[in-house]
Order: sequence, then structure tokens, then C-alpha cells
Amino acid sequence: MLEDNMYPTDRISLRELSLRDGLQMTKTYPSTDDKIKLIQMMYEAGVTHFEVGSFLPVKMFPQFADIRTLIAFVADLPNAYTTALTLNERAMDDALETPLDEMVIALSATEEHCQANIKRSRDSAVGLIRTAVEKRKASSWNPMIASAISVSFGCSISGDVDPDDVLELAMKCAEAGADQIAIADTVGFAGPKQVHELSKMVVSHLGDLPIVVHLHDTRGTGIANAYAALDAGVRVLDGTLGGLGGCPFAPGATGNVSFEDLVYLCERSGLRTGIDLEKLIEARNFLPTILPGEQLYGAISKAGTPTRITWRGSYQWPGQDF
Amino acid sequence: MLEDNMYPTDRISLRELSLRDGLQMTKTYPSTDDKIKLIQMMYEAGVTHFEVGSFLPVKMFPQFADIRTLIAFVADLPNAYTTALTLNERAMDDALETPLDEMVIALSATEEHCQANIKRSRDSAVGLIRTAVEKRKASSWNPMIASAISVSFGCSISGDVDPDDVLELAMKCAEAGADQIAIADTVGFAGPKQVHELSKMVVSHLGDLPIVVHLHDTRGTGIANAYAALDAGVRVLDGTLGGLGGCPFAPGATGNVSFEDLVYLCERSGLRTGIDLEKLIEARNFLPTILPGEQLYGAISKAGTPTRITWRGSYQWPGQDF
Repeated sequence: MLEDNMYPTDRISLRELSLRDGLQMTKTYPSTDDKIKLIQMMYEAGVTHFEVGSFLPVKMFPQFADIRTLIAFVADLPNAYTTALTLNERAMDDALETPLDEMVIALSATEEHCQANIKRSRDSAVGLIRTAVEKRKASSWNPMIASAISVSFGCSISGDVDPDDVLELAMKCAEAGADQIAIADTVGFAGPKQVHELSKMVVSHLGDLPIVVHLHDTRGTGIANAYAALDAGVRVLDGTLGGLGGCPFAPGATGNVSFEDLVYLCERSGLRTGIDLEKLIEARNFLPTILPGEQLYGAISKAGTPTRITWRGSYQWPGQDF
Repeated sequence: MLEDNMYPTDRISLRELSLRDGLQMTKTYPSTDDKIKLIQMMYEAGVTHFEVGSFLPVKMFPQFADIRTLIAFVADLPNAYTTALTLNERAMDDALETPLDEMVIALSATEEHCQANIKRSRDSAVGLIRTAVEKRKASSWNPMIASAISVSFGCSISGDVDPDDVLELAMKCAEAGADQIAIADTVGFAGPKQVHELSKMVVSHLGDLPIVVHLHDTRGTGIANAYAALDAGVRVLDGTLGGLGGCPFAPGATGNVSFEDLVYLCERSGLRTGIDLEKLIEARNFLPTILPGEQLYGAISKAGTPTRITWRGSYQWPGQDF
């Protein structure tokens, strides 16, 4: 069923993407058992939202071959949710045979990046959302349908992106039936002022839907951008443990924003995440054992949380009542 | 003379501290010639504010032995300014025999840290500001007198710090004659919501003075904290090239916020710094040759500035007219 509780409106939701975005460029990938152990460790730390892969041809993308096993595993965990990329109709059909909680349809803010990334025009990608809605009707499963707009803050192929264009595209996605909108800084170009501006625009026009901001930390602004998004009213953020990952179609993109640093940012700012940071760092420190040789990032796992002070701030955000 | 132009009110000022805060814990220190070459490279990139050392006994702090040479060198550069720590009367006397532009008197937000760091009570440190004002009157030089309040966002010794206490102490410093107030996250405890709150309080009560926010990036929030400070109306920020530095009295404090990442943050947010980031990165890359083996940090020097987009954003901050 369509998950009404997946993104509560009265609290923040942090989504962990290491088993999807994190595995797009790694030299090796973990065994299914190790992936499940990683999910289990994160879940025990309080993580509830897992992106577990992409429905892609197994021969070309063997790192996602076990996606059905991971979806089934998380489906048995109380109050835990899975998301996965479904980039075409075949992927949707496959996804709709599983208890996946959210199908993610990726498109791009620019025509050039859309073609390069998913071999479709933006209009065709919006059409995929309508197709997904139809397919869901005919299915016994009822996942959320999300649209993720890549390069929303600047495109590595065609350059500057007008925030009005992103908003227009986001509104088209919503009209086509998307239950959720993500705006993504796929190539790490965004600065916090820009993130604040676009986030505020999208929240103000489409705030009835969960609005996600997906960030990379390529140029050191990842956590600042996350803070700007929260300050603009965004309540869903993406990250990966250890900042694992990047995008094969985004030259120079090195690392998602660190999930554990996002947790620290939120808690330090008075936003409860429900995540135990010490336990989460244990899960983070498990990563190098299952992905040897991969570069990891992030500060809080090295420095530890502040001692002697009440670092889970009592600051309240405007409108916050939890 | 007292420099009216040192902190223009209509633009941002970024201060580079690698030759002072950066050299407090390094295993070696650069030769005077190398320090001058570093200053020259930064100056050619557009950096105008240099903290060049601390007036301390040469035998115990040989890294600052050449402070007079550096002050004299910068004094000959048009539109360039020096700051230096003067922690006691002897240091002030020494400083007042040089063309130093700003004497910095450090104190701490908590009594315990103040005693541990400068062996004085907070009241005694405020008294030092009055002494500095008297000494300046009797001197032929006329530097600004700054007060820097350490551990303003949480203390590694005594724990939580009430922002009202920091504001009260800042106001005492101003009453004693300080021309400038810095609030420092000496031990890297601050989160952006907290920085925004305290910055706004200090700017609102003491905004006639330049208000400086001094940040460390220990827990990954350095750039987010800088953004929060700017958003709250702060127009002077401190940093070190490559995030060099730390504080010997602040356990676990690893690295000032990266100066070059601060420049990128500002420019990406539409705040002109007057600094050429490519040239600045050349100066940053000179550091490892004069401080071999030191850990450096920072993202923009690795990733480079965004290509194909107008990354020097045209976003305007409230009240910005430049």
C-alpha cells in the first residue's frame, strides 16, 4: 500500500543510499549477506529509509542483482522503507512484483543531461511517471512514485540551470502523478544560498508533497547546503555512510554528502532524527571491511561527538513542534 | 593610525590565520623567507588580512620569532593588514613598537577555559583591553584593539555555554574599548543553528563594531557554520589555507575552517571577496612544501571550481548592495 507514514510531516526523514548511489562506481561490491548485515546495523542505529539499488540488467549492473532480496529483507523490518531506481517500463514492471515502498524515476533539469543519463527527453521522463501511475493501478503493490530531478543546481554538460525551469519541471512531475519530488545536486555544484532559494520555491509550490534534497559534497558545501535546505523547510535529505559514491555521468563528482554528518547536523540543530550516532558510526566503520580500498569521507566519524556539552541542541526551527 | 578601512561595512572581509593559528601545533615551522613568500602569494591572490603570529617569548614559541619582520613586510603592501595576538602587557608593549594594524586580546567564554588558556580570569582579560587602550594612547602607533572570545559555542573544559553569557562578555569587551569582537568555536563544537543564533544576537547588540566569527571544522560543520554566520549578518570570517591548525588547549580540535573553501562559499553565494580562487589554491599548494608532513584539509583545492556554470552566484543577501 501507498505508505502514508513514509515521510511524516512533523519530523525529518534521512534516507541512506550507499547500496544504490554508493555502488555506482566502486571497484567491488559487497556480498548480499554483507549488504544485509550493513542494513541491519543501520536499522539498529535507527535508520529507516534505505535506497537498495536500481532495477537494471543484471549482466551490466551486477552490483544490483540482489535488489529483490534486499527489498524483501527490509519489508520485514517494522517501520523501515525501501526506495529503488526504476528508469524504464521494464524496471517498473520488475519493481511492481516486489514489496518496494518507493519507485524513483530519475530525470534531469536539462535536456542534455537527461539524454546522456537516461537516454530520454525530459518530456518522455515525465511520461514515465504517468506510466508508473497506470502500472501501479494494475498492480497488487502500491509503492510511492518519486521523481528525482538531477543537476537541479547546475549541469556538467549544459551549464547554468534556471531555478524557474526546475520548479516548472517539478510541477510537471507532480501533475503527472509523482507522490514525491527530489531536487539533486548530482555534480556538487550547489552553494547554500542557491539551495535555500530553490528549496524554498519548491516547498512553497509543492509543499503538500515530501520534498527531498539530494546533495553531494564535492566542493565542501554539502553540509552547508543541507542546513540551507532544512532552513528553507525541506524535511527529507539523502546521504551515504562515509560519503560513499558518485555518478558515472557526472565527471568530477566525488562523494555523496556523508549520512552520519547529516545526522550530526540535524541533531546539533535540534532536529531529532531517531538515529543513534554512535551505533551509526559502527555501521560506517563496517563499510571498509566490505568495500576494501574505497575512499570514505566525513568528519564526525573521526572527531566523535562533542564531549561535556549538550550537543543535541534545544534550538527550535520555525514551526517545529516535536 | 586606527584603520577605518580595515573592515569595510559594505563588503565581506576574510582573514587568513595560517601563520598564527596554523602554527600552534605543527611539527616544524617555515623559514621567514618562506612565510614571506606565502604571504606574497596570498596577497597576489587578493588576500588582505593576515594574522602573522603571537607576541610570545621567543624561546618557548620560536615559530613566532620573526613576527616583527612579517608585520613590517605586510605594512609595505597597499591595502593589506596584520593582526597578532597580544596576551599580556609585555606583548602589547612589543606590538606597539611595530606597525601592527590590530592587537588581538584573547579571552574565553568560560572562567575555566580562560584560566587554562591565558592564566587569567575573564574580568582580568577585560581589564587587559582597558590597559591596551591606555597603552595605545601613549604610543605613536594606533592599532585596532580586538577581543576574541574563545569557546563561545561550548567549552571543552566546563561544558555548555549560555549565549547570553557570551553576549554579556562581548558587551563588557566593547565597553572596555574593544574596536572589534570575535566569537570563536575554538574546539569545533558549534552547529549552524547555534552559530546563527549567537551571531544574530551579537550583531544586533554590537553591530556598530566589526563582528568576527572564527570557526574550526572539527565535526564537518565549519562551512555550514560560516554560511549561518553570514546569513545572520556577520561580515568578517577567519580561516587558514588548507584548514591548517588547531589549539593546544582544545583537545580534539583538528583544523581551522579551510580559507579557500570559505572563499568559494562566499563567491558561490554572491558575496564578492576580491580573491582569485585559482591563485589562492596555488598558495595553498605551496604550503606542503614549507610544512612537510602536515595534514591539510579542504575540498575546493581538490575538486576545483565548477566548470560550465556561472558559479559566482548573482544571489543577493538582504541589504547587500555591492
